[in-house]
Amino acid sequence: MISRISHRLMVINLTRKFSVSSAIMASDSKFRVERDTMGEVKVPSDRLYGAQTQRSRNNFRIGVYNEEDAEWGGEQMPLAVIKAFAILKKACCIVNMEQSNIDKKLAGAIINACDDILMKKNINLRQEFPLVIWQTGSGTQSNMNCNEVIANRAIEILGGQRGDRNLVHPNDHVNKGQSSNDTFPTAMHVATAIETHRRLLISLDELLNSLRKKEKEFNHIIKIGRTHCQDAVPLTLGQEFSGYAQQIEFGIQRIKAALEPRMYYLAIGGTAVGTGLNTKVGWDKAVSSEIANLTGLPFRESPNKFEALASHDAFIELSGALNVVAASLMKIANDIRLLASGPRCGLGEIMLPELEPGSSIMPGKVNPTQCEAMTMVCAQVMGNHVAVTIGGSNGHFELNVFKPMIVANVLRSITLLADAATSFNTNCVTGIQVNEKRINQLLNDSLMLVTALNPHIGYDKAAQIAKKAHKEGLSLKESAIQSGFLTEQQFNEWVKPEDMIGPKK
Amino acid sequence: MISRISHRLMVINLTRKFSVSSAIMASDSKFRVERDTMGEVKVPSDRLYGAQTQRSRNNFRIGVYNEEDAEWGGEQMPLAVIKAFAILKKACCIVNMEQSNIDKKLAGAIINACDDILMKKNINLRQEFPLVIWQTGSGTQSNMNCNEVIANRAIEILGGQRGDRNLVHPNDHVNKGQSSNDTFPTAMHVATAIETHRRLLISLDELLNSLRKKEKEFNHIIKIGRTHCQDAVPLTLGQEFSGYAQQIEFGIQRIKAALEPRMYYLAIGGTAVGTGLNTKVGWDKAVSSEIANLTGLPFRESPNKFEALASHDAFIELSGALNVVAASLMKIANDIRLLASGPRCGLGEIMLPELEPGSSIMPGKVNPTQCEAMTMVCAQVMGNHVAVTIGGSNGHFELNVFKPMIVANVLRSITLLADAATSFNTNCVTGIQVNEKRINQLLNDSLMLVTALNPHIGYDKAAQIAKKAHKEGLSLKESAIQSGFLTEQQFNEWVKPEDMIGPKK
Amino acid sequence: MISRISHRLMVINLTRKFSVSSAIMASDSKFRVERDTMGEVKVPSDRLYGAQTQRSRNNFRIGVYNEEDAEWGGEQMPLAVIKAFAILKKACCIVNMEQSNIDKKLAGAIINACDDILMKKNINLRQEFPLVIWQTGSGTQSNMNCNEVIANRAIEILGGQRGDRNLVHPNDHVNKGQSSNDTFPTAMHVATAIETHRRLLISLDELLNSLRKKEKEFNHIIKIGRTHCQDAVPLTLGQEFSGYAQQIEFGIQRIKAALEPRMYYLAIGGTAVGTGLNTKVGWDKAVSSEIANLTGLPFRESPNKFEALASHDAFIELSGALNVVAASLMKIANDIRLLASGPRCGLGEIMLPELEPGSSIMPGKVNPTQCEAMTMVCAQVMGNHVAVTIGGSNGHFELNVFKPMIVANVLRSITLLADAATSFNTNCVTGIQVNEKRINQLLNDSLMLVTALNPHIGYDKAAQIAKKAHKEGLSLKESAIQSGFLTEQQFNEWVKPEDMIGPKK
Amino acid sequence: MISRISHRLMVINLTRKFSVSSAIMASDSKFRVERDTMGEVKVPSDRLYGAQTQRSRNNFRIGVYNEEDAEWGGEQMPLAVIKAFAILKKACCIVNMEQSNIDKKLAGAIINACDDILMKKNINLRQEFPLVIWQTGSGTQSNMNCNEVIANRAIEILGGQRGDRNLVHPNDHVNKGQSSNDTFPTAMHVATAIETHRRLLISLDELLNSLRKKEKEFNHIIKIGRTHCQDAVPLTLGQEFSGYAQQIEFGIQRIKAALEPRMYYLAIGGTAVGTGLNTKVGWDKAVSSEIANLTGLPFRESPNKFEALASHDAFIELSGALNVVAASLMKIANDIRLLASGPRCGLGEIMLPELEPGSSIMPGKVNPTQCEAMTMVCAQVMGNHVAVTIGGSNGHFELNVFKPMIVANVLRSITLLADAATSFNTNCVTGIQVNEKRINQLLNDSLMLVTALNPHIGYDKAAQIAKKAHKEGLSLKESAIQSGFLTEQQFNEWVKPEDMIGPKK
Repeated sequence: MISRISHRLMVINLTRKFSVSSAIMASDSKFRVERDTMGEVKVPSDRLYGAQTQRSRNNFRIGVYNEEDAEWGGEQMPLAVIKAFAILKKACCIVNMEQSNIDKKLAGAIINACDDILMKKNINLRQEFPLVIWQTGSGTQSNMNCNEVIANRAIEILGGQRGDRNLVHPNDHVNKGQSSNDTFPTAMHVATAIETHRRLLISLDELLNSLRKKEKEFNHIIKIGRTHCQDAVPLTLGQEFSGYAQQIEFGIQRIKAALEPRMYYLAIGGTAVGTGLNTKVGWDKAVSSEIANLTGLPFRESPNKFEALASHDAFIELSGALNVVAASLMKIANDIRLLASGPRCGLGEIMLPELEPGSSIMPGKVNPTQCEAMTMVCAQVMGNHVAVTIGGSNGHFELNVFKPMIVANVLRSITLLADAATSFNTNCVTGIQVNEKRINQLLNDSLMLVTALNPHIGYDKAAQIAKKAHKEGLSLKESAIQSGFLTEQQFNEWVKPEDMIGPKK
Repeated sequence: MISRISHRLMVINLTRKFSVSSAIMASDSKFRVERDTMGEVKVPSDRLYGAQTQRSRNNFRIGVYNEEDAEWGGEQMPLAVIKAFAILKKACCIVNMEQSNIDKKLAGAIINACDDILMKKNINLRQEFPLVIWQTGSGTQSNMNCNEVIANRAIEILGGQRGDRNLVHPNDHVNKGQSSNDTFPTAMHVATAIETHRRLLISLDELLNSLRKKEKEFNHIIKIGRTHCQDAVPLTLGQEFSGYAQQIEFGIQRIKAALEPRMYYLAIGGTAVGTGLNTKVGWDKAVSSEIANLTGLPFRESPNKFEALASHDAFIELSGALNVVAASLMKIANDIRLLASGPRCGLGEIMLPELEPGSSIMPGKVNPTQCEAMTMVCAQVMGNHVAVTIGGSNGHFELNVFKPMIVANVLRSITLLADAATSFNTNCVTGIQVNEKRINQLLNDSLMLVTALNPHIGYDKAAQIAKKAHKEGLSLKESAIQSGFLTEQQFNEWVKPEDMIGPKK
Repeated sequence: MISRISHRLMVINLTRKFSVSSAIMASDSKFRVERDTMGEVKVPSDRLYGAQTQRSRNNFRIGVYNEEDAEWGGEQMPLAVIKAFAILKKACCIVNMEQSNIDKKLAGAIINACDDILMKKNINLRQEFPLVIWQTGSGTQSNMNCNEVIANRAIEILGGQRGDRNLVHPNDHVNKGQSSNDTFPTAMHVATAIETHRRLLISLDELLNSLRKKEKEFNHIIKIGRTHCQDAVPLTLGQEFSGYAQQIEFGIQRIKAALEPRMYYLAIGGTAVGTGLNTKVGWDKAVSSEIANLTGLPFRESPNKFEALASHDAFIELSGALNVVAASLMKIANDIRLLASGPRCGLGEIMLPELEPGSSIMPGKVNPTQCEAMTMVCAQVMGNHVAVTIGGSNGHFELNVFKPMIVANVLRSITLLADAATSFNTNCVTGIQVNEKRINQLLNDSLMLVTALNPHIGYDKAAQIAKKAHKEGLSLKESAIQSGFLTEQQFNEWVKPEDMIGPKK
Repeated sequence: MISRISHRLMVINLTRKFSVSSAIMASDSKFRVERDTMGEVKVPSDRLYGAQTQRSRNNFRIGVYNEEDAEWGGEQMPLAVIKAFAILKKACCIVNMEQSNIDKKLAGAIINACDDILMKKNINLRQEFPLVIWQTGSGTQSNMNCNEVIANRAIEILGGQRGDRNLVHPNDHVNKGQSSNDTFPTAMHVATAIETHRRLLISLDELLNSLRKKEKEFNHIIKIGRTHCQDAVPLTLGQEFSGYAQQIEFGIQRIKAALEPRMYYLAIGGTAVGTGLNTKVGWDKAVSSEIANLTGLPFRESPNKFEALASHDAFIELSGALNVVAASLMKIANDIRLLASGPRCGLGEIMLPELEPGSSIMPGKVNPTQCEAMTMVCAQVMGNHVAVTIGGSNGHFELNVFKPMIVANVLRSITLLADAATSFNTNCVTGIQVNEKRINQLLNDSLMLVTALNPHIGYDKAAQIAKKAHKEGLSLKESAIQSGFLTEQQFNEWVKPEDMIGPKK
């Protein structure tokens, strides 16, 4: 019944190269001809994009690995960048119109085409912007992808034929006053600032809120502290959570400090090498101001366009802030899963919401899965940060050519942190419950309450009491009284957990 | 005509949280009820997956960021893992049948269901395996996703109703003798070994081939060497390329050394904590051997199942080998773009194929775009390596819970390196041409041919000649003769580039 | 004459374990007995440190690998931390005196002992503070090392016998109101802020100054731009250097933003777990204020002591800023060595100071060695950053126990960047000279001046001109005129490099 | 009594640049004049090194930050590299003598000088080899440092005057047939292979031994397993330790696989760019063979010298293996500290040796300090790995110029891992004791023994029993009986921990 051999051959043929190229043309059965400065290119007739987009599809078949499964594999240029390009192209066109660099009717069509992208109207974004991250390092091909789609859509709006470069030209009209070298970094900044605001900062704010609520909710619960993973002096569970909240609060501050001002500086106006060739004085300021208008964010022209094209330090900086947040969340999620460890053979001080069966073999098992998703995300963000650093340090002369990789990693880190923070918050933090019985039992067992005796009998004698209790299996009070260093009454007066959770007033 | 304000509001509302959750249920309009040990769950009626898959979709909405654009964003569990699971489940079922642990008819249905996955027949893989990487760190939910899909498909084959756990049970039948804790690492190893073979090693072999061809093709071309980016003694262009080829050849050896033997050791048979509870003696060996049969790769049972569940050092090791290959390719691609720099104001020794217009503003510009895609991929692989290292170092007790993140990064590195190597090879290396005129001109201008004089007149006098030529703008020969340290005849005899490209025979 | 065999055995015996422990006790031939809560320990009689320091020396023989060569191997706790401890202990003692927690005479002796450390008077710092970084992760042993040295020095000042804990007690007096858990992080912050100011910021300011001077000096020199390492439109050498200057200027801002406010928040007052047990209300504020007085830096009490003990996000943050600066300097140094490549077979646009013979075999060779030292430092800083991130993310509960590793890496990055910036500045940047002849020749050869024609004849026709020139080996002007798209007069009017280095006015 | 202001000024003056240069010349009060091709240099008269060493000291004042404290700061070229150079120079001289390239008497003196370095006789290594890592990226200055010291020592042996280049010339005689570009990488390989053998592999073997002993010692102790940090099915403590042992055993295999063959390939014979200019055919093989003789390690000539100079992939590879070992040790040390957490409020299953008082404030506290030192070392090694990767990926053309940084990081990782493994082994692992009472108590409390019921009553019913026990605070047996799914007798028969620690026979 089961033919193992045939199945084996079917599954993998290790000597035959895996094909990445079969599917595309098969599904692109009807074509029109588009042109660029290198000649003619066949383009699927139902697509708006043109010659250079198609060249990039042909030449950069990298990371489209699930194509055989009709998957795109997540290696495309993030749509956040495409939308930022639409904002930018629209802003440029508005300014070109105001500066009389372009015909008004033509400008109107271009602006409407940009709006179609922004509103996802008349345009299937993923189909029209299929290019992968792993293209030219300047992002030129994605800039041209935008120019071509906008041009062809504007041509349609104007009633022309797709590909009629005389009517609307991707370079001369849509890209007017621009270069990939200033538009791509501008789109990088715009996309990143927007996503940071509307995803990450909002998610972190919500998480901070929940942690602050738990801080209050838990503020009366005195528990054993742990340093070096060993029993230490007590604190409240609320105080413990206040540390987590503080980390997130600082994290939000760090992200904001990494945005302002450097992520708001835009390269636009630098054109090819930073000089602003083929623009007029003031173009940079005008376009930046228009982008600020369109987005509600304080974008402005970069004070030095050479830096803005040749380096992406602002991304290494922001990625560094994300890296700190990832380290914070790694610590918090790790603590929470350890505090919730058990239910019977761990610390068991807190209980997490039970969201799914935890094991395919151990019945009834429940696991801290949200902590696990979170810590995996944190490790990924730390790895992404290294990729961004390496890419950022590798620029040559007037241009850094790791742009698509840099922005893709930063956007991925933003998205993953944001989504993980929301999931962790909603599915874990808000539902944390306390096992007070367990907490009290551990607190009373602890030997480290002995620290309260230091000011009364000195460190050395206090140590003798703790060691004796540990060695002989006594309670701390028993050991203290047996030591002869203090009376039971003194012990009762001096060793009160509730007096140990803050400085003496 | 253009309403900026309305557009601005439309584009981004920075105070409203980005929603990740809206789309799913809307498109899943018809449901059936599935059950697991936690109770009932509504599942889209046209899907094979069951309760636990749906719980995971609800609870882990992380990285599905383009859902509003009907995108999945590449954050799903790689299909290579799903296919490896199908191989594994099939192998387990065969052994269960042979060990009489399971009814034969039922086993046949399960095996056929596995084959459906492997042949992508009757099952839309991406729709049935929608779970993201960012789930439980043991991959339990993807194991259950497989168990559920296989169970429901087997039920269909047997003519039953989806969800009828009495007929085929995801845990008791499909997962029989297994735990997520041993199946997921097994699938990780199987998927990674297969992809390494059928993608990466083949791509690197092809690249090596091309470099070796270029090495031969260029072996007569003597050119200036460069150390510290400064002019140095000559070598042939073929020798230069032989260094690149050697890096790739060593890289292939490194990857193979990282596979054999440790990537071929399988965790299967460890079940929940490594002990093999609920299996029979020999189960591990039998299943591993069956997987070896099905794949043609030398898989065998891990010598220590505790290590195999609790750590993923084999992935850090392989990722380390990928990291070396990335460093090699970074160096090679960087060299090639610098040697091709120009066309008139750079080194200009070689010329790369012209594949697309290079600039949206500078007409006629052609850029080393394949080098750029390659170096971006290399930076990404280095970053992925850090993520894998961090995840791998973070296990607790009997289980490492960074499994999905680890395997996803290693598979991504494999795919990106493989595809980039193929693209770089096909679109760049094979088409490299030489500018012999330029190479000869630079060779003859160089001062470092002076090194050939060391054995004749000593280092100090040779240095005087070179310095004099540099200072006075002389040719080396002019300077040598003027120095009085040697005659023109001696110079002609001693300073021959063709004698400088190897040791004296 | 030469006994190879005997030498071989002498050089390495691969089967004998390398000994790390031989030297210490041999040189410590005279002892006194010190005590701590675990009992008696023999301590070298000529050292001030006590029992716990000696225990750490015995138990942590890590990284003292060159001891056999009387080397310390650089693995000791940085003296910057020791000095910060002296400032802190002094500040605590002043406040203890003011709060009447300690006898005035005893306090005076402790303060004088702290001053001895700060002034390196009566105390050999490296001998008295021999402990390595690789000790307890809380730095407790270095805190106790300070407590012991200060106690014994204070005992001497008071005329007592070293080790007389009744006179001055390391814990009860010197450590009064403190724990390692709040003092060590406080010392980390104080040391790091001081070193950032007095080393790094000053060095970077000087480098910025030099780059700005070069920017002005080179502002009239029009040169070819390079994007993708390919010829592009022109800019001035001054503009190119302005980009470098801007990177450093932003870098300085980034470092300052990472200091203020979070690096100035001090953990002191948190004592063992953050609660402030065994202190009085206001102690944190008073000590922080005293440290601000002593250092002139705006230190203040941390708003949340739990965060301040359990995490070191402030160090990951600052390390992230150093990481950006490293990426900037990597880019700058790389550009400079490429621009200076040659002298005859590279770009050769600038010339670097000649500081040493460059080659042991190639006479007269001069290399960009300062760029090389700089880029090596940058790679190290990026690696250190990953170590800091991993350490910072690994805290458990109330205490992060990667403290010594974290502070050592951040201090090392600060020092290396500072010293490398100074060396690079002094020995390279200030001496950069221009090869104007070469720059002009390259500028005039370039084809990319064609970009100036876009606004006049359109991108497509301009591309035809450039391609024709490239293919036929023509000058751009020749090609333009032959194309028929414009006249010679138009060419001369439109294509002026001096009009291409900024936007149109 | 206390002058705060004066102290403050004394401590730090933030506006005055920290001086790194003051001390050197002060202590070098007597000089002789040495010469190189750039002219005269003053060198301390009591030192053997010459002009180029002194130039490097003057030009690279990086990382010598504790000079004011007579500290060297650990930034010098590791002595392991210097010793490898002595082996190499000796081997070259032997071959030069055999090939009659050098006078025998002169050769004898050079060989004796090399032996002086190897035996640390007549030469103070650290004083004669003072150069820092942060010099030229080719290590030329350290090669010249060796050449100069050997030349001057040989001159002394021959009865000449230091600096008499006519008698023994650093370049023409000591460096004969060599370049920095092949000698420095050769010394890198030799030093690294030796240190790996005599430090790291021996240390790891010892640790493996101890873990295997503990595995046997603990093999009868059945304990609760933990997955996801949650209670799971049982295993023995010996099985748990067998996983650790396996990680180390694989780690040793990984390191050996990274040495053989690629770390044993030597660059010697490549001279300046890999061609072997100024050597005779066979020189590479002869010198490599001589080095193999002198060291007892299987060194041989590199199959491609271009790769051997231009890349250091072998170091990225070995560093990758060290990175895996670091990840393994991080996991092991982390587990051990968590298993030993307590003594009363943690898991408390094992007890670690008590080596020192753990806290400066909490009397009697004992901490897992060896685990902490180990995990800090692991984080450092992971960071070093990134630095090595970045340096390794950054070569240009015929030479990688990150050589000193690369070798310094790999040697540091080797030393730290070796020393930490020894310290961890000696001071922690060998002394681990078991708290059997605690282990039994936890085992009996656990609910996950329910997994043994799966084969008898199915996963779903077993889950009901576990959930009921958890919810109602019952023992598993109580819940099982109350459930009615099985009898007490069946429970006793089926649920036996001792039957759960392996597959069914």
